[in-house]
Amino acid sequence: MYKHETLRKALKKVVLDLAVTLDGFIEGPNREIDWCIIDDDMDFDGFLASIDTIFYGRVSYDSWGNFQPEPDASPTEHLLWKGVHAKKKYVFSSQHRHDDQATFISSDLAHQVAEIKKQGGKDIWLYGGASLIKTFIQSGFIDRYRLSVHPTALGSGKPLFEDLKSRLELKLIKTNVFKSGVVQLIYEPEKYN
Amino acid sequence: MYKHETLRKALKKVVLDLAVTLDGFIEGPNREIDWCIIDDDMDFDGFLASIDTIFYGRVSYDSWGNFQPEPDASPTEHLLWKGVHAKKKYVFSSQHRHDDQATFISSDLAHQVAEIKKQGGKDIWLYGGASLIKTFIQSGFIDRYRLSVHPTALGSGKPLFEDLKSRLELKLIKTNVFKSGVVQLIYEPEKYN
Repeated sequence: MYKHETLRKALKKVVLDLAVTLDGFIEGPNREIDWCIIDDDMDFDGFLASIDTIFYGRVSYDSWGNFQPEPDASPTEHLLWKGVHAKKKYVFSSQHRHDDQATFISSDLAHQVAEIKKQGGKDIWLYGGASLIKTFIQSGFIDRYRLSVHPTALGSGKPLFEDLKSRLELKLIKTNVFKSGVVQLIYEPEKYN
Repeated sequence: MYKHETLRKALKKVVLDLAVTLDGFIEGPNREIDWCIIDDDMDFDGFLASIDTIFYGRVSYDSWGNFQPEPDASPTEHLLWKGVHAKKKYVFSSQHRHDDQATFISSDLAHQVAEIKKQGGKDIWLYGGASLIKTFIQSGFIDRYRLSVHPTALGSGKPLFEDLKSRLELKLIKTNVFKSGVVQLIYEPEKYN
């Protein structure tokens, strides 16, 4: 029992950190994310300090995996991207590719994710996009949900939770209320508690 | 300015108090509400004490408007229903009906709601059902949303916010975290703030 507990605690967690509307959408019907608030009390740096690994889908990786801010961007932005690029990166893709900055995974998802979790150390940020997030939710690979519920209802859009095979029961771990009216709800799946 | 402020404060508020899933549903695809948690720290009595009027749709009124608990139900349940039945009741219905316990409203909704709000006193509980709630949301008649976000994602069901004519921007007023993991988010529409 004790050994099992120790082992479990040493595993990296896969963390989904995402902005959602009050009605559960991650994008509007035309992919709008203009409802999304960046608030300086949200402590993204703290989150970044808690992870050492990032999981990307292929499209997200190509867009953001090696993104460099403009030379005249703020020092804060340069620092943020430097922090992101210092993480170990994995890209989930059906394409076989090689890249000095990332490890590509194209098969045997469950096994590969389990192996990476066993490396220990800090946690894993599941960056996205939407299709990778959907696969991870459906497969039960997410160990922690950090959902920033925004004070906006869109009425339609891309739902975070869609095509679930079964109801997802979560355990509330913590809530953070930001001055913008965003409420961050942090959950873990019931099976982990 | 001062007179206007005083007048506005004297108006009754229409309050929607509702349980929603983390993905924004008020019922599952087969009308399931078995995910709904009743927690004794939720202070429903306190809410009931803040209202003196209830708005029902016709179907909800016929089911619950004059409901009496079984004689062997708990004293708490008897007290709760006694509290509910002491409120002034309005029923929104296309049918013209008369009833000693309630006033029926079958036309001129916006005007009637405005007149009732002007009566002052305590607030109004928008009881439901779903179709009355939808009408009230779409018409902008709701002054306060009290949404109890449950730690469950269903993946599909009846959305609280559907067929919105436009995006609904809210202002967070308060959050209450219950020991069950339910998080109550209290909002008012932006226009009121």
